[in-house]
Parts: sequence; C-alpha cells; structure tokens
Amino acid sequence: MLLANLREQVLEANLDLVRKGLVFSTFGNASGVAHGEGLIVIKPSGVPYEEMKPEQLVVANLEGQVVEGNLRPSSDLPTHAALYRAFPSIGGIAHTHSEYATAWAQARLPIPCFGTTHADYFHGPIPLTELMSDEEINGEYEANTGVAITRVFQTIDPVRVPAVLVPHHGPFAWGPDPLKAAETAWMLELVARLAYLTVGLNANASFLGKTLHDRHFLRKHGKNAYYGQASAKE
Amino acid sequence: MLLANLREQVLEANLDLVRKGLVFSTFGNASGVAHGEGLIVIKPSGVPYEEMKPEQLVVANLEGQVVEGNLRPSSDLPTHAALYRAFPSIGGIAHTHSEYATAWAQARLPIPCFGTTHADYFHGPIPLTELMSDEEINGEYEANTGVAITRVFQTIDPVRVPAVLVPHHGPFAWGPDPLKAAETAWMLELVARLAYLTVGLNANASFLGKTLHDRHFLRKHGKNAYYGQASAKE
Amino acid sequence: MLLANLREQVLEANLDLVRKGLVFSTFGNASGVAHGEGLIVIKPSGVPYEEMKPEQLVVANLEGQVVEGNLRPSSDLPTHAALYRAFPSIGGIAHTHSEYATAWAQARLPIPCFGTTHADYFHGPIPLTELMSDEEINGEYEANTGVAITRVFQTIDPVRVPAVLVPHHGPFAWGPDPLKAAETAWMLELVARLAYLTVGLNANASFLGKTLHDRHFLRKHGKNAYYGQASAKE
Amino acid sequence: MLLANLREQVLEANLDLVRKGLVFSTFGNASGVAHGEGLIVIKPSGVPYEEMKPEQLVVANLEGQVVEGNLRPSSDLPTHAALYRAFPSIGGIAHTHSEYATAWAQARLPIPCFGTTHADYFHGPIPLTELMSDEEINGEYEANTGVAITRVFQTIDPVRVPAVLVPHHGPFAWGPDPLKAAETAWMLELVARLAYLTVGLNANASFLGKTLHDRHFLRKHGKNAYYGQASAKE
Repeated sequence: MLLANLREQVLEANLDLVRKGLVFSTFGNASGVAHGEGLIVIKPSGVPYEEMKPEQLVVANLEGQVVEGNLRPSSDLPTHAALYRAFPSIGGIAHTHSEYATAWAQARLPIPCFGTTHADYFHGPIPLTELMSDEEINGEYEANTGVAITRVFQTIDPVRVPAVLVPHHGPFAWGPDPLKAAETAWMLELVARLAYLTVGLNANASFLGKTLHDRHFLRKHGKNAYYGQASAKE
Repeated sequence: MLLANLREQVLEANLDLVRKGLVFSTFGNASGVAHGEGLIVIKPSGVPYEEMKPEQLVVANLEGQVVEGNLRPSSDLPTHAALYRAFPSIGGIAHTHSEYATAWAQARLPIPCFGTTHADYFHGPIPLTELMSDEEINGEYEANTGVAITRVFQTIDPVRVPAVLVPHHGPFAWGPDPLKAAETAWMLELVARLAYLTVGLNANASFLGKTLHDRHFLRKHGKNAYYGQASAKE
Repeated sequence: MLLANLREQVLEANLDLVRKGLVFSTFGNASGVAHGEGLIVIKPSGVPYEEMKPEQLVVANLEGQVVEGNLRPSSDLPTHAALYRAFPSIGGIAHTHSEYATAWAQARLPIPCFGTTHADYFHGPIPLTELMSDEEINGEYEANTGVAITRVFQTIDPVRVPAVLVPHHGPFAWGPDPLKAAETAWMLELVARLAYLTVGLNANASFLGKTLHDRHFLRKHGKNAYYGQASAKE
Repeated sequence: MLLANLREQVLEANLDLVRKGLVFSTFGNASGVAHGEGLIVIKPSGVPYEEMKPEQLVVANLEGQVVEGNLRPSSDLPTHAALYRAFPSIGGIAHTHSEYATAWAQARLPIPCFGTTHADYFHGPIPLTELMSDEEINGEYEANTGVAITRVFQTIDPVRVPAVLVPHHGPFAWGPDPLKAAETAWMLELVARLAYLTVGLNANASFLGKTLHDRHFLRKHGKNAYYGQASAKE
C-alpha cells in the first residue's frame, strides 16, 4: 500500500473537518501530496466519514489519474491536482462547505480583513475567484475550478494567503501538510464568522491598517516570529 | 403487526430529525408509505420522541384513516396522505419546524438557490405554497395543506425539488424512503441557513446560474451522475 | 420540611432551564406555588445550579416573606409573588435571560406572531410591559416589576398568553406547574429566535392571520383540541 | 516552584476560557498576579490548552521580565503587566477572541448597555481604546496596547467596568482573581451577543436608563448588595 503515513494524515485531516463542524453529510474533502513521488492521497467520493479507513483513500498522480484504490476519488480531485501542480510549496488541501465562508462565497464577496484574528493567519483579504464561463463549467469543471483559483494567485503568495473562495460554491484552504490545511479551513471559518458579525454591526467597518496587519502576521510567521515556542517554529 | 420493517424505518427517521436538531418539543413528524399495500406508517401525535416505540406508530390508509394503532396519529397525517396520493414516486415525508427553513416560511419567501450546496440536492428554488383561504383553514385544514402543496408541484417535479415551504408554518421534505426524507429535511435546513447568511451579507446576491446548477445537480442525480460510488447510485 | 413534592418539581424546573440553555451563570429562576397552602417554593439567590438541593430551596408566603429556609430567596421573589397573587390559575413561573427573548426585551419590542409555532403555544403576540418610573425602580423594584406585568394582563388572558417581556430586562413565563413554566420559557425562546430570523429576512413580514392563529392554538388547547393523546389533555 | 497555588488558579482560568467557548486554537490567555511578591503567572505562548500543566506556566515580574519558566510567555504578557501596574486592585486578567465581543471590537464600537444582564456586571458601556499610531504598533506593540487601555480608564473605574475592547483586536477582561477574570470574559461575551441581537432588531434601541442601571449593578455590588448569599459577598 502506497504512502501509508500520508494516508493516516489525510484520514485524520478529513475527520478533523467533521470534528470542527466544517462539513455536513458527505460534503468536503481533504487531501495530501507527496511532491517527491508526484502522488496525491485523497478522500473517496460519497463515503461516510465515520466509516472511512486509510486503505479506502485513493492515490492519484498529479494529473488526477488514479494510481491505487478501488473506490472513486472525491469528484473534486482535479481541483486539488491543479493546485498541487501550481503551488509546489503546499502539502495539503481542505475543501469544505463551512457555513460562514460559504455564505461569503455565495454572496460573491471577498472576506475583508477586519482584525488581528484574521491577520494572524492570512496576510490579506480572502480572495474570490472569477465566475467560470459556461464553456468552463460544461467542460472539465473541476479542473477548471483549479485553474480559476491559480489565476487569482498570480499576484498573491499562496503561502501568505492560504485560502480562497469559489463564488456560489465554497472555500478551499491549504497548508504545509493535510492537518495544517484542515486547521486553516477552521480558522477561515472563524474569520468568516467574525467578519459577518462585524459588517452586521457596522456596514462601513474599516479594514485593519497595513501596519497592524503586518505586525500580527509577522509575529507568527517568518524569521522574526516571536509567537509560540521556538521549537514549534517553521 | 403490519409493516414491521417500515415501522423501524419511520421510527429511525423521526429520531434522526431529533438528532439533527430539526425538531423541538413534539413538533415535527416523519412517515413512510408502502405504495403496494396502500398503507402509511406515521408518528403518533404528541408522544415524546425519546419514549417512542415501533409498535406505537400508527398505520393508516391513503385516505388518512387509521388501520392499526391505539394512539392518535400525528395531526398532520392528512397532509402526508395527500402528498402520497399525489406523488406516487416518493416513499417518505418529513415535516419539521427547523429554524431557518421555518424563518423563510414565516417571512413568506421561497429559498433562492445561491450555491452549489443547494444545487446538489434541489434542482431549483424551494417553493412556497399560496396562503390558504379562511374556508380552507376552517375546513379540512391539514388535508387542504396537502392540496396547497400539490398545487405548487403541478409545474415542478417533486423528485427534483423534494421540499416545500408552507407560509407562516414550516417546511415539508420528502424522498424515496423515510430516512432519505429526514436527510432532505436536514439538507433543506442547511441550505436555508446558508441562504439566510448570504442575503445578510448581500441583499442583492445573484442566484446560481443555470449551467452551474445543472452541472451540480446532474453530477449527483440521474444516469450521468459521477459523484459517490457506483454501488450507491440510484 | 414543607412541600417536599413541590420542592422536587421546582428544583427540576430550575435544572431544566439550565439544560435547555436558557440561563447563564446564576441568572434566572423558577418557582412553584401551592395555592391551597398559600406558599411559594423558589430558588435561592446566587447558588450554582449544579450544587442545588431540594432542601436549599426557599419557602415563602404569597406576600413574599420567607417561611422556611436558611438561604436568601431569589431576589426576584417579590415579582413571582405578585404574579401568583394576580393569576390564581397558574402554578409555576420561570424567569430567564434567554438570548433571543432578552434581545426582544432589550429592543423594547413585543414579539409578533409570525407563525404556527408561536400560535401553538401563545394565543397572541408576547406583550411588553411599560417602562417603570424612577420612583418604582428606586422603591420596591422587584414587586413593582410584578405590578407592571399584571397591568399588561388586565386585557389579556395569562393562560392563553403565558409569557411577557420586561423591557431592558428579559422574559417571564408561566404555566400550570413549574415544569410547564420551564417548557413555556423554552418555547418562548424558540419563538423569539424564529421571529428574529423572520424580520432579518423580511423587515415587513406580515403577521399570522387570526383564522390560522385560532386554528393552531385551538387544536392544542381547550375542549375541541385534537392534538396529542386524549389522556394527555388538560 | 514559585506561586504553586496561583499557577493552579491561572491554569484553571485558562481552561475555563476553553470550556466556555471563548478561545479558539491557541488564541487567548489568562493570567494572575501576586501583588505582594510583584509577580505575574501567565500562560505560555502557543501551547495547546489540553496539554498545559501548572509547571509550564511562566512567572514574570511586573515589568514583564521572565523570572521562572522554560517556555516563552504569552506574547501579550506586556499588556497584562501594564494593566497590573496601573490597576493595583485587580488580581487576574483574561484576554480572548470571543466571537461577539471581537465583532464589536472589529466594528470599532463600544458595547452600549441595553439591559440589566449588562448592568449586573458592568457599571457602564464597555469602552473601546483609541487606535494606536504606527509608531506605537511598530514599537513595543503589546506594552503600548496596555498603555492604550489604561488611558481609557483614567476616567472610568476598572473595578466597576472590568472589561475593554481593543479595536480590530478583541476584548480584555479582569477581576479580583484569575477565575473571576475568566467569568467576566464569559459575561462580556454574553452581553456582546445580546447587544448584537438587540441592534439587529432595533437599530435605534435606547440604552438602559441610569436609575435602572444603578439599581441592578448595586443590588449585586457594594455594601448595599442584596443579591446572592451573604457569605458569598465581597
């Protein structure tokens, strides 16, 4: 069985999405990549989370073709594969329909940065991809979703802003490994909820200033970080 | 005892509504039908869910007359019976007062389709029945509720849009069997909550386009579906 | 020890408020009355719910004077006593700071009846008392709260509308016994939440018509009720 | 090991923040002070709550310099230290990113007092500090946060209003000891949620009048308090 360790991580990341209340029914999926081997491990499609076993996870290559596994992979595999090809620095992806992040996606609005909770995890607003054309939807829809995402990140560093909203659909989040991707998806939902409440109180709430945004992001990230314990640093 | 197996399913569907947080107190009810026998199994009226036993469920015919059982059936039985007569392709019905779906019903607004979460389960907005006249309310109120529902579905396929809102009252949902009906009621509530949050962020949010709506609904439903595992297909 | 049975009921009603999430910290209190003996059993003031024992409950007369018990009674005892004197048909009272009902009270708005969930329990909107004068506040504040409530019910039947909002404060609910009072407080909170969501979707939502309001209230209450089991009827 | 007893209290206060749902991930921190020794006990930075042990807590002096402990202290230690220096009457501080209080902070609005729930704990609105200048942010940011807070309390008694909002950031709350500080943080979140719902129902909701505010605050606090049991009084 290929990639036993990564399978465990991906399974755990999928269960984490459930434990954090970010997925409902069989919506949502987490994956991980072994860039050296060029292989992705992803959740099978439509299998209840509570019954999922490591050996049911599907292994695919970076083109999205199944290499090992008897079950169909998550139908969003081509989106994950497109992101792994475009973002060689990420090791895991989590896609959810978490409530508040999905509401922003359905409202077709990026999530502005209103506070330091946001700034601690994301170095800028959570961007929104453009609407896909009918041709893109009727064609390789899931792969084209990945293309729409990578287009947004031509001018944004995906390591500094590790999440995106797909309009009318929901969020994708990522990180250095599958569990960090699930954690990012969780923080994104928190940030989306705080931003929802903020505009509910003040429709013209002002955004966090750049100086404070940088201060918070950089006290957690990069070589001058001073948050957390030194041993836990990147 | 008639229909032992269907009783178990109907009991389980009723308990599922409670576990998913869709019913409060003794509000709400789930039923199932054996179209071959022309018999309905439904929850008794006003019995606490936690004490309910399969033998307490009530069996009625499609006219809503009790055939077996010592307890009064749910007062909404005539609504269920009207739907089973009108929609021969459905096998279970769930009625709840779940919060967000009920709020849309109280606000007398259909639930627009703002995203793929909705499109995955419902091939169109969740419609609203017309207000009943005083004569209909003072007459066979519960049966007339069923008539009002079936009137809406003269131009909508109840298999593709398996739920409806009754104004000032709440939602009815259905499916091929009682458990699927309970699942639809749960998804309806999720969709209602996402739509509530969406209009809270953007009062003029645009609806999901038809191309993407079709794509999502049809990747889960019908002969070209490619979501989930083949063995789990309809 | 006086009224052992009523003490158990009152303790259980207080715990029910906690289990239903209607009280926070030591806010809120439930009481019961033995009209024959002219005695009230009420929660002691500021004692954590999880440690409360039947013998710690306080017994007072209808003037609000303590008859048995070493602990101070809830500071709201004079309000409860005023209601028991004014409403001889009620047997229990529950006061909470439950979130949505308190929000309506803080917004100084009665809760309109938007749906059948409301109509099933309350035969009209949930009324709001008038603001008290500075003299009433600086005088016998808690007793005057009771007076303000009874003033509202000069033209409303407290059995048909078993709850009220005190502006800037919160709800009081009642019923034939302490547990029913706690149940009413729970249903009031549900109704308050549904109404909050309804006006969030439609600021001009229309109220439930009288015919449907009567139909729902009267199918559960009074001599022609047909909801629930006959043995469970009043 | 210094201050064994205070370490236990501070650990318990930190866990209480988690149990009450006020902190997410490793956000938030509680501390306590031994004014006699001039020593602060505070949570270490970025250590998961579920694994935290009393000996991992960090002891610092009132200048914010570590006196005992192998782990880095919470990065907010300089804020705590500034408050302990400025407010000699407080014994514990809790900082959270609790949802509704943070939303008010992100919206840059003080929390008005709309009701007695608020008045029971806070003798006035929850104030908001001024925005810090870029120089203050780029300098000793966390210490300057403390300075901004103490500036607000030049005209407010921190014992009567034991909480504050830092704009774009979140709330700080305090009390006579660490557990009371955590309780204040919890009550602040409740009050913030009630106020959010109140303005959602009535954008022009009027504030609680001074007479009623005083009555409620003073029935719980000070020498004429009559809420709770005498033995539990301050």
